[in-house]
Amino acid sequence: MWGGRFATGPEQAFDQLNRSLPVDVRLWPQDIRGSKAWVQALKKAKILSAAEESALLHGLDRVSARLQTGTPGTESDEDIHTLIERMLYEEIGELAGKLHTGRSRNDQVATDLRLWCLEAIERVDHEVAQLGKALVTQARATVDIVMPGYTHGQRAQPVRFGFVLLAHAWPLARDRQRLKDTADRTAVLPLGSGALAGSGVMVDREQIREILGFRAISGNALDATGDRDYVAELLFALTMIATHVSRLGAEMVTFSGSEYGFVRLADGYCSGSSLMPQKRNPDVFELARARSARTLGDLVALLTTLKGLPAGYNKDLQEDKSVLFDAVDALLLTLPAVRGAIATLKAVPERMRAALDASMLATDLADGLVGQGLPFREAHGIVGRLVKAAEDQKKPLNEVAEAASRAIHPDLPALIATLGTWEDSIERRATTGGSSRKSVLDQVRALDAEFGG
Amino acid sequence: MWGGRFATGPEQAFDQLNRSLPVDVRLWPQDIRGSKAWVQALKKAKILSAAEESALLHGLDRVSARLQTGTPGTESDEDIHTLIERMLYEEIGELAGKLHTGRSRNDQVATDLRLWCLEAIERVDHEVAQLGKALVTQARATVDIVMPGYTHGQRAQPVRFGFVLLAHAWPLARDRQRLKDTADRTAVLPLGSGALAGSGVMVDREQIREILGFRAISGNALDATGDRDYVAELLFALTMIATHVSRLGAEMVTFSGSEYGFVRLADGYCSGSSLMPQKRNPDVFELARARSARTLGDLVALLTTLKGLPAGYNKDLQEDKSVLFDAVDALLLTLPAVRGAIATLKAVPERMRAALDASMLATDLADGLVGQGLPFREAHGIVGRLVKAAEDQKKPLNEVAEAASRAIHPDLPALIATLGTWEDSIERRATTGGSSRKSVLDQVRALDAEFGG
Amino acid sequence: MWGGRFATGPEQAFDQLNRSLPVDVRLWPQDIRGSKAWVQALKKAKILSAAEESALLHGLDRVSARLQTGTPGTESDEDIHTLIERMLYEEIGELAGKLHTGRSRNDQVATDLRLWCLEAIERVDHEVAQLGKALVTQARATVDIVMPGYTHGQRAQPVRFGFVLLAHAWPLARDRQRLKDTADRTAVLPLGSGALAGSGVMVDREQIREILGFRAISGNALDATGDRDYVAELLFALTMIATHVSRLGAEMVTFSGSEYGFVRLADGYCSGSSLMPQKRNPDVFELARARSARTLGDLVALLTTLKGLPAGYNKDLQEDKSVLFDAVDALLLTLPAVRGAIATLKAVPERMRAALDASMLATDLADGLVGQGLPFREAHGIVGRLVKAAEDQKKPLNEVAEAASRAIHPDLPALIATLGTWEDSIERRATTGGSSRKSVLDQVRALDAEFGG
Amino acid sequence: MWGGRFATGPEQAFDQLNRSLPVDVRLWPQDIRGSKAWVQALKKAKILSAAEESALLHGLDRVSARLQTGTPGTESDEDIHTLIERMLYEEIGELAGKLHTGRSRNDQVATDLRLWCLEAIERVDHEVAQLGKALVTQARATVDIVMPGYTHGQRAQPVRFGFVLLAHAWPLARDRQRLKDTADRTAVLPLGSGALAGSGVMVDREQIREILGFRAISGNALDATGDRDYVAELLFALTMIATHVSRLGAEMVTFSGSEYGFVRLADGYCSGSSLMPQKRNPDVFELARARSARTLGDLVALLTTLKGLPAGYNKDLQEDKSVLFDAVDALLLTLPAVRGAIATLKAVPERMRAALDASMLATDLADGLVGQGLPFREAHGIVGRLVKAAEDQKKPLNEVAEAASRAIHPDLPALIATLGTWEDSIERRATTGGSSRKSVLDQVRALDAEFGG
Repeated sequence: MWGGRFATGPEQAFDQLNRSLPVDVRLWPQDIRGSKAWVQALKKAKILSAAEESALLHGLDRVSARLQTGTPGTESDEDIHTLIERMLYEEIGELAGKLHTGRSRNDQVATDLRLWCLEAIERVDHEVAQLGKALVTQARATVDIVMPGYTHGQRAQPVRFGFVLLAHAWPLARDRQRLKDTADRTAVLPLGSGALAGSGVMVDREQIREILGFRAISGNALDATGDRDYVAELLFALTMIATHVSRLGAEMVTFSGSEYGFVRLADGYCSGSSLMPQKRNPDVFELARARSARTLGDLVALLTTLKGLPAGYNKDLQEDKSVLFDAVDALLLTLPAVRGAIATLKAVPERMRAALDASMLATDLADGLVGQGLPFREAHGIVGRLVKAAEDQKKPLNEVAEAASRAIHPDLPALIATLGTWEDSIERRATTGGSSRKSVLDQVRALDAEFGG
Repeated sequence: MWGGRFATGPEQAFDQLNRSLPVDVRLWPQDIRGSKAWVQALKKAKILSAAEESALLHGLDRVSARLQTGTPGTESDEDIHTLIERMLYEEIGELAGKLHTGRSRNDQVATDLRLWCLEAIERVDHEVAQLGKALVTQARATVDIVMPGYTHGQRAQPVRFGFVLLAHAWPLARDRQRLKDTADRTAVLPLGSGALAGSGVMVDREQIREILGFRAISGNALDATGDRDYVAELLFALTMIATHVSRLGAEMVTFSGSEYGFVRLADGYCSGSSLMPQKRNPDVFELARARSARTLGDLVALLTTLKGLPAGYNKDLQEDKSVLFDAVDALLLTLPAVRGAIATLKAVPERMRAALDASMLATDLADGLVGQGLPFREAHGIVGRLVKAAEDQKKPLNEVAEAASRAIHPDLPALIATLGTWEDSIERRATTGGSSRKSVLDQVRALDAEFGG
Repeated sequence: MWGGRFATGPEQAFDQLNRSLPVDVRLWPQDIRGSKAWVQALKKAKILSAAEESALLHGLDRVSARLQTGTPGTESDEDIHTLIERMLYEEIGELAGKLHTGRSRNDQVATDLRLWCLEAIERVDHEVAQLGKALVTQARATVDIVMPGYTHGQRAQPVRFGFVLLAHAWPLARDRQRLKDTADRTAVLPLGSGALAGSGVMVDREQIREILGFRAISGNALDATGDRDYVAELLFALTMIATHVSRLGAEMVTFSGSEYGFVRLADGYCSGSSLMPQKRNPDVFELARARSARTLGDLVALLTTLKGLPAGYNKDLQEDKSVLFDAVDALLLTLPAVRGAIATLKAVPERMRAALDASMLATDLADGLVGQGLPFREAHGIVGRLVKAAEDQKKPLNEVAEAASRAIHPDLPALIATLGTWEDSIERRATTGGSSRKSVLDQVRALDAEFGG
Repeated sequence: MWGGRFATGPEQAFDQLNRSLPVDVRLWPQDIRGSKAWVQALKKAKILSAAEESALLHGLDRVSARLQTGTPGTESDEDIHTLIERMLYEEIGELAGKLHTGRSRNDQVATDLRLWCLEAIERVDHEVAQLGKALVTQARATVDIVMPGYTHGQRAQPVRFGFVLLAHAWPLARDRQRLKDTADRTAVLPLGSGALAGSGVMVDREQIREILGFRAISGNALDATGDRDYVAELLFALTMIATHVSRLGAEMVTFSGSEYGFVRLADGYCSGSSLMPQKRNPDVFELARARSARTLGDLVALLTTLKGLPAGYNKDLQEDKSVLFDAVDALLLTLPAVRGAIATLKAVPERMRAALDASMLATDLADGLVGQGLPFREAHGIVGRLVKAAEDQKKPLNEVAEAASRAIHPDLPALIATLGTWEDSIERRATTGGSSRKSVLDQVRALDAEFGG
């Protein structure tokens, strides 16, 4: 492909390092699409006759058909672009040599990769929405199940189980916005940039943009051929998704342990142990918990590659694809499994309710004292002393001897008497976004719309 | 502050670890703003009388005035929130104890941090635009300076110096879009979420949103208090900016070296050597080249912190601020220095022109053969053989003996004769976004608008 | 300092970026030590007379004494090296100008930084050993407390609490080995390398090595001045320590939660909540859990800085110090707090024992069947069916109706009858390194020796 | 394999996520080795008869022979361990069920992975030594080639080309030490740890250690099964190697560009361009420059996975292998290619010499003034003014008009007259580790011994 330039071919060790076909072969559908658009542009630029255009388009279709049934790459094909060009020669002979007119692999691969990213974004976005739906569906079904809410890993205030599930669904809605923004910035056409300085053929880049469905055309050829910002941005968006999945996974590992016992995984989403016959392991949620690590590693790899690189194409950029594919593949494997595990999860309401203890009403008592005119800080201190008394007496907060509580503050006994049920406590925090029944159902509705429920 | 809950105070080693005041003291203006909005909300919710509201607002103003003249924090103040509360007691006495009604440090700090991020985004965005302007101004002035364009660090095709500078300006335009998207997702109000489950006071969150200038209110209190996505997204946006600055810096280090000699830094942006009297070191661009490393490290730190964290507030989140402040500070130090160095840079046209060699016309020759009907691949091979002949003869491409070039292809001698000047070569690649004079000036206009030139 | 080389001084924006004094001021004791050794070397090389040597040494001592009482750096001092040189001029006049003979800031700062790292390693190593001791002391005290051991966050087999604590102590022993290896590779003297190519003064580098207590002298001046491997290796060793602390912290957060209730933090290591009076938050362990994130970020920052840097000194290397100091400081703040929290932790044996459930004897039953000649896989399957029967009957494993267990395998009822106590089960796994009483006490002895207990 | 525990098998989405065979199949030789050692241990522990031992060993050999010819894994095999167990059943029937007695996949996979790491370390170490040798061989051949040495990317002082090459060889010697330390810490046997708490069979772990060639046995079973420190340490060692290769690669990209023209790659290590017939691209060195990015990403992925993981085995650890394999594979692909490129590189002495300019003698002049008793700082200032005069006169430093140089300092003209050749200048910096001929040849000898040259 490099013509008569070199006296000898590449050494084997170099060839094996340099050869990207095993990785970039996945770009073949995008490479075909891009080449067909280029053929049309060459025709409009009068580089190709109508007959040549037609022959090239048909040739590319035949190559595409062959690739659909498996990749006939050999050791001598350096990358997917040269493989497709070789196959095109096999199909239509010397005319194939006209395809690369005015185009460089630099603008070609940038176009292919953007097309691939756009499709990957769509697939990931679909799976994120599906996971979001599964969470919302579970949340609707469990709105009346009451459990402890936690901060610092410690029981804090009573909440609804559905509310906790939705706390993991909202981040996914943000993820979809980020994917959309990323797609917007990805849908910018590099083709027509040549190797670095524009194409020697006056192609109509707007025509190509329209054929390939991009939103805009790139503004500077040197930037366009050396730019991988869109890969970095996609990897970041994926890392955020993976981080959210990781937080959900970790929470579910905790909730499924015997000490909590709040949820039970369906048999189809459990693993056993090779040694311990009794084990029900939440592997799916452990792998989910770990997922953001590899995605973050992929992001670091790309950003470190880009550090200090001159403008324009440098071979270092070849490293972009393996990390991108790794992150997308891993996420597309993880999201459906997590969704299935969430959809089939059984909540265990009696264990959740059993975990509620009276100390979680401390905020209610403090709020009650505030209602009687005390500054919050003072109320907080009073209830703190009640908590300590309860601990010393090894009694629940609301069963501290009346004399003792009255000694701390005269209004306490009466307030304790009005605390009511866990549901009452929850409903007392009725602000928008809170855990009240209405708020949870409002959130379900909002997220249903968000995830196309 | 934790009332009567504990028998003893914190041990010193724990206190030193736990104390965040040295870091979060910078949030004081945001904390005051947030508290004033909260006071107004408590008034509307009838928790405070008009007189109390007024007293609290004035008290907060007096605290603010004191903080403007220096931070009177002592060893016993855990964080900025408790420091301000203590100062408020000093100003207005027991009434200060009403401020924290229905609010938690969890929704308070999330609000403060979002306000801080929004201001940081504005400052960074301004500096990015200023750097963009400096590049565009230099590009306009150097549009007629011709130099080699590079790929793989090797001379590739002739370009205009302004074109290369603009290749570093376009990424900054993308950065500003990303900052804007980040700001949109940051401007979501958490206040009113309480500790995790909503506030016990029925505040009007829309009122608070409007006072503080947020775009929307958060949808789920547990999510809102444990969410640091906006910090991650900002750190990513900063890392992308730093990556672009790193690429620009690396390019300028190369261009300013004696072997290239393409640019000369102003004396005010050079360093010397403690040992070698002749040195003119481009420290500013070396530090720019390194900048994305630390920003990336900050991003990694935050995302690793978030990995596997349960929903809601966990103390791990306290780590968010030191990495965020580090990244913003470093960038706000770097951008003005790089801008100044770019604005005062002198191009050295004669060195750039001297670096152009005839082999860079190879693409033109291949394009010329294509113009006579040859498939590009064949043309590429023919010119490749000419390149090899020139190397063997140790002559420039366009001075290969006519007999020799004719032997390779009969049309070569005539084509060589028509190659023209470097400018002719550049203008032959006239597609949008290319290095032609018109294209560069079009880009200057487009980016002028972008950067508010 | 750069002599008469430049027409104008540095612009402010550049100066602020370039100035490293606020960070590198901490190197002053190392800089003084290195300079004193250099003075002695210059004397031996006959560059200085005995009187000059003596005057310079005394001058450096006086500068040192002044620095001990605070740093008199001004805006015009670029870094610690130039500050000390300026102060030396103030002390001894023009003779100060002889100090820098044959030395460059490149070999000077590399020497200072290695000395600093060696001291940091010692301090960190001491704290790691102290944490190790605290774990071993707790382990010895809790060897007879029985609890569930976990894999996948699920109850697996009964173990001793001391055994679990030791699982967090062994990694610290590895950390100390790594610190030692790092120290060995750090204790290599760069001084005498000049700016890049050796010193113009024939100093005796072995003499300097001996004075400064290094193990060896560097082999190549260009490598020595551009090498920051030792910083990377130290940051990695710190990240591993932080990772171990993070795993210990996460485990303790889990164990201290109400659902487990296995441990109770001393009041002096707990935080409360600003809103919820009942909270006892394990902040110390949450911050420990998060610690490896920032250390990893620091490591990433340094390694990304080094990527693609040419040999020899480049200004990018200035970034090494802020990340190194950050990681060391953070760890030296965390380790004592975690040690204190571990040392004062109270185990809650009754909660641990209550968490043991009969299903954890499943492995014992399978092992029992193997003892009667069954292949393990078959035994595993049999016990698996018993586990399922127990779950279906909602009974503990060892209380499944005899008829039912006999139906699964005739030997099961007899085996169930011999299961014995939890301690019996633990002692049945008696291999070296296991949870048996003897094994745990052997480990305590081994680690006592390791940590200098 | 999980016996009768679950009512239904795994769902497809979960199975695809959970299944590690496609990745861990590479561990089969280690798994066979470990299993054979385990069989011998079970025999000694009297769990197996001599005949059973023999049958199992032969069975494992037959499985090994089959695996050597390709992996017959099916969709139903979860991982390499279960595949081998299934194949063993095919070979020897029910007796296969005795293999897993007293062993868990947790200690099994940890053993396999340590064996794999030890072999990988050996392979990588060999390649590092080979690259070291190639550099040393080139250095010996080019010791008399003189070129500019650089700091800050700027010409600093003259050096020998061999000296620069050795600056890239010394780091590799450090890398080999690190690999050795890593191997020491990796060669610790986990087998016999059971699932978490020791094995129910009293195997002799010292016997297993000896059979498998480990250095020591692990001290705590819970630590041993959840420990991946050795993977992290290996990934770090690989990242350091990759960083060194990255610095070498970047330097060679610079040196091979036309502006420097210091080296010329052999045709067999060059790539061309699909568009520009004249290009000779140093892809091998660009890919080398990028290499540390992915390795660092792999390290980040592992360390982030480990963050906050409880002691003992968690499924998250399954992620260790893909990143480990990726890093080792990438490095084993890169090192031979870089070695070949270095071995076949041609230095271009005339271009190197042409790049030397007289300003690089400035340090010599300053040293000369010091030799006449001036303090270095004063000398530095004097020569700085000479440099400026030379620049203003647009003359080389040593051709400034005598009157002008004398006006700066009366001794300058005489000193200039004695500057001598570039070689003289180099030899004046004669300290150990410098660029003098003797020093370079000493280094060659030392590194020859190091790399087994």
